Amino acid sequence: MKPDARDRLIEGTRELLWERGYVGTSPTAILSRSGVGQGSMYHHFAGKPDLALAAEQRSAELMQQQIVDAFAVKGTAFERISGYLGRERDVLRGCSVGRLTADPDIMADEKLRAPVRETFEVLHENLRRTIAEGVAAGEFADDLDTDEIASTIAAVIQGGYALARAAQAVAPFDRAVRGVLSLLRASARP
Amino acid sequence: MKPDARDRLIEGTRELLWERGYVGTSPTAILSRSGVGQGSMYHHFAGKPDLALAAEQRSAELMQQQIVDAFAVKGTAFERISGYLGRERDVLRGCSVGRLTADPDIMADEKLRAPVRETFEVLHENLRRTIAEGVAAGEFADDLDTDEIASTIAAVIQGGYALARAAQAVAPFDRAVRGVLSLLRASARP
Repeated sequence: MKPDARDRLIEGTRELLWERGYVGTSPTAILSRSGVGQGSMYHHFAGKPDLALAAEQRSAELMQQQIVDAFAVKGTAFERISGYLGRERDVLRGCSVGRLTADPDIMADEKLRAPVRETFEVLHENLRRTIAEGVAAGEFADDLDTDEIASTIAAVIQGGYALARAAQAVAPFDRAVRGVLSLLRASARP
Repeated sequence: MKPDARDRLIEGTRELLWERGYVGTSPTAILSRSGVGQGSMYHHFAGKPDLALAAEQRSAELMQQQIVDAFAVKGTAFERISGYLGRERDVLRGCSVGRLTADPDIMADEKLRAPVRETFEVLHENLRRTIAEGVAAGEFADDLDTDEIASTIAAVIQGGYALARAAQAVAPFDRAVRGVLSLLRASARP
C-alpha cells in the first residue's frame, strides 16, 4: 500500500498544481484529491513544499520525455518542429510545467523553480539543434540565430496557451503556431 | 477621503493580483497593502470579486492605452512592431493582464475574464492592422496570414515572460522577441 499512497499523493498534487497553482493547493485539497489520509501524507513527505517538488519533478520528467520523443522521429527539421507544435495538447488546460511560472512561491524558491527551468532548457536545446539542422539542410535562412528562434518557438507555445485561455478557445493557440511555422518556412525562400 | 480610499483599494488589489494571483489575494492582504480599513472596503465594494473586477479593469485600461499609443507612432510597420516589442517592460514581473490567464477563478468567470479577453483583442487588432500595412508596403511577405502572425507575436510576448520567469533572467524574453522580428524581416526577401 505504501508506494501506492505515495504515488497517489504525487499525482493528486501534480493535478492541483496544474489546475489551481501552489497557493490554491492546500494540504486538505491534496488529501481529498489523492484519497489518502493525513498520516500517510506526513509519513511520505515532510510537508507541502516537499510534496510539491516531487509533483513538479514528475510533470517535468513526463514533459521532457515527450520533448525527446517528439524530436527523435525521422523527418526534416520543419516536420519535426511542426510535429512537436502540432502534437495533441489539451490547450485550454495549458502546460503542466509552464503554468508554474505564474506561481510566485515556486519562482521565488530555487529548488521548486529548478524542474521548470530544466524542462525549458531541454525544450530549448532540442529546438535549437533541430533548427541548426534545418539551417544546414537549407530548410531555413542561414542567417537565423538558432538560439533566438528556439526561444521564439518555445514562447509561442507558452504564450499560445495564455491567449487560448483568455479567449476560452483553442483558435488563438492554433493561429500562433501556424504563424510561426509560416514565418520559418518563408525564411528559406531563395 | 472616500475617492482616495477607493483608489488605493483598486491599486492595492491590482498589485496583489499581478504578484500573487486571485487565490493569493486575500481581503486581509488587500487591506494591508491599501492601508484602508475593512469598513471602507465594504463601503466601496460588495466583496473580493467586485474589487478584483475593478482592479482588472484598471490594468486592462492601462495596457490598452499603452498598446494604442505604441502603434500610433510614425514609422514603418516593422518599426512600430519592434517598438512595441522593445518598449520598456519589467519582464520578470510579467504582464499585469496576461498573468491573470493562469488564474482558474478568473478564467472560469465570464465577467472576470472579460478585461483579459478584451485587452488581447485590442493587441491583436493593432498587430493585425500593422502587419497588413507592412504586407501592403512590401515590408513582409504578401502571403502571410495577418491574423496568424498577429497571434504569433502576441504569444511571443506572453510566452517570453514565462521563459524569463523560469530562468529568472530577461535574456530568454529578449531572444524570443529578436527571433520573431528576424523571421518577420526575413519573410520579405525577394
